[in-house]
Amino acid sequence: MYQRELTIETHGEGEIVDLSAAVQDIVTASKIRTGLVTVFVKGSTVAVTTIEYETGVLSDLRRALDVMAPKDAAYEHDAAWGDGNGRSHVRAALIGPSITIPLQEGKLLTGTWQQIVMVELDVRPRRTRSVVCTVNGMKE
Amino acid sequence: MYQRELTIETHGEGEIVDLSAAVQDIVTASKIRTGLVTVFVKGSTVAVTTIEYETGVLSDLRRALDVMAPKDAAYEHDAAWGDGNGRSHVRAALIGPSITIPLQEGKLLTGTWQQIVMVELDVRPRRTRSVVCTVNGMKE
Amino acid sequence: MYQRELTIETHGEGEIVDLSAAVQDIVTASKIRTGLVTVFVKGSTVAVTTIEYETGVLSDLRRALDVMAPKDAAYEHDAAWGDGNGRSHVRAALIGPSITIPLQEGKLLTGTWQQIVMVELDVRPRRTRSVVCTVNGMKE
Repeated sequence: MYQRELTIETHGEGEIVDLSAAVQDIVTASKIRTGLVTVFVKGSTVAVTTIEYETGVLSDLRRALDVMAPKDAAYEHDAAWGDGNGRSHVRAALIGPSITIPLQEGKLLTGTWQQIVMVELDVRPRRTRSVVCTVNGMKE
Repeated sequence: MYQRELTIETHGEGEIVDLSAAVQDIVTASKIRTGLVTVFVKGSTVAVTTIEYETGVLSDLRRALDVMAPKDAAYEHDAAWGDGNGRSHVRAALIGPSITIPLQEGKLLTGTWQQIVMVELDVRPRRTRSVVCTVNGMKE
Repeated sequence: MYQRELTIETHGEGEIVDLSAAVQDIVTASKIRTGLVTVFVKGSTVAVTTIEYETGVLSDLRRALDVMAPKDAAYEHDAAWGDGNGRSHVRAALIGPSITIPLQEGKLLTGTWQQIVMVELDVRPRRTRSVVCTVNGMKE
């Protein structure tokens, strides 16, 4: 089992970062050939999933999140704490913090148009995010 | 690999239970230091995710679920079976039954404001839920 | 660690395939008794979750997805690429590509009414999908 942490800087709400190459690098460094990699993001206003990393799709995802937890709704979290990020928490809980991807011959078994992404959901202009990648399997 | 089952009693629709301390106890008992813990809930009207365990946020999540699968919509499941929990099934399928969290030095690598939660989505006044925690890794 | 790929043919948008028996067969073939199985689907317009495999519930899930990412909305992906499957990408990213299920005595620890399903979200009349199942654990 091999574990490494990625540090990612984000620049605002709705930024979607393609982690695929960085996760593949960790898998390669682990020398594990058959197995799994779990990608987990620390924090309650950020999430991880897979998506086609194409400008239009990313924009469509942002709009769907705005339907599920709109910007202009009244959030009890905001009323209580004044953070203004009530929607960020809700969206993050719905998408989830972790995914697990199979490995074969040392390669991520994702589809051609399926990238691993971190979705920044907080409203602050700048955040440093920590993504923990854990590779588990056999070196053969 | 170390596996334990948590038994949790819930008291109604929308109850959100913080499992973080119980999951950490299982990790500690496993003596595994570096690795992963998978938290899985049995049942099709209950889900697992991470969220900041703060009253306002929990309430905001419940409201978002009510937008995605409203209480007053007509559910085919309810028409066919009269359970009245069509929305519970839909919400559970959207959030999902499992998450996987990395461990370092025997501790959950979650963010400070990121708790592991079980979301009771069924409409019955009382349920007994089973959460299976599986710890996998190295004792060093 | 034991890894097998399921090849599944689908016949249109919204088809939901029950994978439970096929996943259990892979677990049985692996001879692993205590552990985990991770079910991952390749592709960015398809997803995996658990649900009660009952006609009404499946139909209710499809309707909820149509609220979150409606058929008649304008998708930037569609404007740019003309694929007509902008909603498919969004829905797949929200549900997610992977789940992990615990095993005890060689059996999936799912609830009685909780089936493992693949949700076809693309709009093409016919697709061949690849689901990778990775079993990890102890043969005792």
